[in-house]
Amino acid sequence: MSDRMRLVVTCPDRPGIVAAVSALLHACGANIVRSAQYSTDPADGTFFLRVEFTVEEDRIPEIGERMASEVGPSLDAEWRLWDARRRKRIAVLVSRYDHTLRELLYRWQRDELDGEIVMVASNHDDLRGAVELLGLPFHHVPVSGAEAKPAAESALLSLLAAAEADVVVLARYMQILSGDFLARVGVPVINIHHSFLPAFAGAGPYERAKDRGVKLIGATAHYVTEELDAGPIIEQDVTRVTHEDDVASMTAAGADIECAVLARAVRWHCEDRVLRHGNTTIVF
Amino acid sequence: MSDRMRLVVTCPDRPGIVAAVSALLHACGANIVRSAQYSTDPADGTFFLRVEFTVEEDRIPEIGERMASEVGPSLDAEWRLWDARRRKRIAVLVSRYDHTLRELLYRWQRDELDGEIVMVASNHDDLRGAVELLGLPFHHVPVSGAEAKPAAESALLSLLAAAEADVVVLARYMQILSGDFLARVGVPVINIHHSFLPAFAGAGPYERAKDRGVKLIGATAHYVTEELDAGPIIEQDVTRVTHEDDVASMTAAGADIECAVLARAVRWHCEDRVLRHGNTTIVF
Amino acid sequence: MSDRMRLVVTCPDRPGIVAAVSALLHACGANIVRSAQYSTDPADGTFFLRVEFTVEEDRIPEIGERMASEVGPSLDAEWRLWDARRRKRIAVLVSRYDHTLRELLYRWQRDELDGEIVMVASNHDDLRGAVELLGLPFHHVPVSGAEAKPAAESALLSLLAAAEADVVVLARYMQILSGDFLARVGVPVINIHHSFLPAFAGAGPYERAKDRGVKLIGATAHYVTEELDAGPIIEQDVTRVTHEDDVASMTAAGADIECAVLARAVRWHCEDRVLRHGNTTIVF
Amino acid sequence: MSDRMRLVVTCPDRPGIVAAVSALLHACGANIVRSAQYSTDPADGTFFLRVEFTVEEDRIPEIGERMASEVGPSLDAEWRLWDARRRKRIAVLVSRYDHTLRELLYRWQRDELDGEIVMVASNHDDLRGAVELLGLPFHHVPVSGAEAKPAAESALLSLLAAAEADVVVLARYMQILSGDFLARVGVPVINIHHSFLPAFAGAGPYERAKDRGVKLIGATAHYVTEELDAGPIIEQDVTRVTHEDDVASMTAAGADIECAVLARAVRWHCEDRVLRHGNTTIVF
Repeated sequence: MSDRMRLVVTCPDRPGIVAAVSALLHACGANIVRSAQYSTDPADGTFFLRVEFTVEEDRIPEIGERMASEVGPSLDAEWRLWDARRRKRIAVLVSRYDHTLRELLYRWQRDELDGEIVMVASNHDDLRGAVELLGLPFHHVPVSGAEAKPAAESALLSLLAAAEADVVVLARYMQILSGDFLARVGVPVINIHHSFLPAFAGAGPYERAKDRGVKLIGATAHYVTEELDAGPIIEQDVTRVTHEDDVASMTAAGADIECAVLARAVRWHCEDRVLRHGNTTIVF
Repeated sequence: MSDRMRLVVTCPDRPGIVAAVSALLHACGANIVRSAQYSTDPADGTFFLRVEFTVEEDRIPEIGERMASEVGPSLDAEWRLWDARRRKRIAVLVSRYDHTLRELLYRWQRDELDGEIVMVASNHDDLRGAVELLGLPFHHVPVSGAEAKPAAESALLSLLAAAEADVVVLARYMQILSGDFLARVGVPVINIHHSFLPAFAGAGPYERAKDRGVKLIGATAHYVTEELDAGPIIEQDVTRVTHEDDVASMTAAGADIECAVLARAVRWHCEDRVLRHGNTTIVF
Repeated sequence: MSDRMRLVVTCPDRPGIVAAVSALLHACGANIVRSAQYSTDPADGTFFLRVEFTVEEDRIPEIGERMASEVGPSLDAEWRLWDARRRKRIAVLVSRYDHTLRELLYRWQRDELDGEIVMVASNHDDLRGAVELLGLPFHHVPVSGAEAKPAAESALLSLLAAAEADVVVLARYMQILSGDFLARVGVPVINIHHSFLPAFAGAGPYERAKDRGVKLIGATAHYVTEELDAGPIIEQDVTRVTHEDDVASMTAAGADIECAVLARAVRWHCEDRVLRHGNTTIVF
Repeated sequence: MSDRMRLVVTCPDRPGIVAAVSALLHACGANIVRSAQYSTDPADGTFFLRVEFTVEEDRIPEIGERMASEVGPSLDAEWRLWDARRRKRIAVLVSRYDHTLRELLYRWQRDELDGEIVMVASNHDDLRGAVELLGLPFHHVPVSGAEAKPAAESALLSLLAAAEADVVVLARYMQILSGDFLARVGVPVINIHHSFLPAFAGAGPYERAKDRGVKLIGATAHYVTEELDAGPIIEQDVTRVTHEDDVASMTAAGADIECAVLARAVRWHCEDRVLRHGNTTIVF
């Protein structure tokens, strides 16, 4: 029986990378279905490769072994082999704004995320009903004051570990995660910011957009790093506003963009299509 | 014979503004063709009105007189009456990048600006040929070093006054105009900035966009104020980029957006559709 | 106490329409908050006006009476006065595809439709649970074969009358409504078609779009007339596809556009912003 | 010295295609810079591959020979090897509307087409001045009545052959080319149609769009086939219009989209990024 796999490779650019990888795959009976590559610079740059292929299930171990023993070392490569059937386990953190959570839940039910939502946690208890209705575990992890944050973050880390989460999605989670949390969580954390970063980083972006009189508002999905709103951008989009829009109507229009941008970013991440490169991303 | 006029009114919001203005116009035999209004707040806000109407030419003075003596004072209004046949006179300042100048010249030739380009000035002599070919005056006003700027700005002011310019357009003019120049020029100055402001204000926006890894790049047309890149925004737009784009291809893609955004802003300004409100604009 | 009203007027274009209407409103103590107008042709055309205003509740009857006795007849106008608090009652017809229904339900719960969903009917029973969960009545009106359609349409007409529906929304309702139904329903019917009309009218638009190799797919919300997919268009939008998209991924991408386009059309209709003009619409 | 090449391959899909091609390229010292592939169906479909690579100039013949003798036959492939320095020679046919011609000329001067415009021909003499000003040959080939068309087409074929054109671009050329012409011209012919095909194929699309009341208008660049406006689509785009737009303003707005769409299509074609597949295109 045939299985669909993804191989993602990052290495110094040099001639022969595609030849080496495709020769190995062909030797193991794989059929390349989709392939994308990018080099920051053919001379002296970094090369990124993502190959999607079908292969008989019993040949998969051989591919991993030969990548580990031959091709990987010869290319000085970091690489990872993903089984497309092993869908990523998604944990969602949320506060009170529910629109991006509801969008993720809806797309998950329609099987449009290429991943499984396995838990939702929140610093408020408001959304318990909407989550539990779908048979998903909901955890209320309150944060009250600065001294409560370390305990809350410890609780979250335990819940994420127990849920075996592969990725954490901040669906308008209004708490700033500490560097210590990010260092210990061990999986990527994706945030949706309600502005077209780097414009209006920080709090109150729609208020500031109204004050500045911009003609487009946007949203940005990015990996979370210790520096607030400064991590690698995965996806952005915008929508038009006019002088007639007030903060409320900009917030409503922005909510649609936040939902669309976050859903795309989560799906692309789950499909192993997003590669990090310094503080930027390659999206294949 | 019938003429097309525009009346623009700004005043404190209160009941009866539209009634007063439309009664006056009707009494003078005018037919309202287009009307747009906006209030920042029906209670205690500012009201903006732009009315486009046709009227017999010999009734125009009466409209102006009755606005000045009756309706204007009764509404505590600032207002202006424009004859649509009296097209605005546009002066363009440019440096070496020629794409936005060429776009303006092309749209002027096609009569798409609702205004007349009457002169081009530059701190370089490179574009003289392209401008003079169209029968337009080209003025080379070099700026070398800080001490040369006051003299250059004086020369520009003289040229603008002699050309009777109604609006100055900075088509990628790479000199920062002094507060003194802006105070003395006496007409609006429109700039095109090659980023989606307030992101990447200042120099080198495409380089900084590449470094930050944004997924959309944009351009912003705004009125120039003394604070650099912070004046009222008239129009903005964006286009999508990917990790494959380098600074050169982002610059090329951005050039198209700069052209489109600046051309729209200049046309709207010439049509008296842009009203300033603090540091923002109403675009009717 | 102040109430918000909408007055919509259609009449032959002539001088003085705005003056007459605004004088009446001012005389009744109304404050115009928003006004939009359009003329197909200042000479001999049709004039459309929509005015939004606030007024003391006890003055509303006077406005209606004076429109009926004075201003309306003098302008030879069709007009309608709407109380913004009297929200439109929306009935939704659906078959098995649930995405546009879910979008409408979601936006209704968030109070973004400016109307109330009062019933859902379907020719299948599948979506009963999702609808009843929200406390809404769900009616299963099966249609089996040509001879069953008249009975089904009669049943629908009774349900719509009993629900006092102001507008019927076909949220991917896969039955063609007869001319007789449309003549008797007495309220506007809005449909979402899953193509950028007039391209791919009729069945299977995504299949045909794939065959034709188009680079954008779209959706169209329109009022239903007896001629299939040919009624007045309210709103359209598109999204980009590539050669890599198959019918399934085009259907998924199209679903997002269908949801967005239908939600905008329903909201604009409920806000009395859509005026019909022959087979086209004015959207203020 | 290193040269940049493009190899385009079409063949029945089977395992090992990428391995075979990349092994050959690696053996000849080439470095793959960019690679894109698409399969209509991994089982029994057609596979399309475009590889961009750098290689020492003296190794190029070897690549061609080994593709011809080994890899091509073994894959049952159609393939073509292009030298990126050998820029395509573009002939433009135009009538009286000049906007798309001017756009192409402007982008050619800025070196944004990846090709060389080598001649312009027209059935009118109006644009001679604008073309000759740039040092380009302009040919007036009048067509008067049906009996004149065969002679005009013969004259065009001679001019195109003499100019060694690699591609013919119809920049709003208002004559229908005969099947005989298309059979004999021997190079691809690209047309810009001023609608979002398949909507409004044929004449007068803006008039028909206004009548139908669409909310978006568009343009389509496609390869010309004998069936009018039905050839493989290369690129499409749209822009928003409202009820306020008349045919004139829709024509003006559409002109911008026509320019942008045609310029992209010509550039992509010149970069060998457009592969035909039946009546559709793959755009890598």
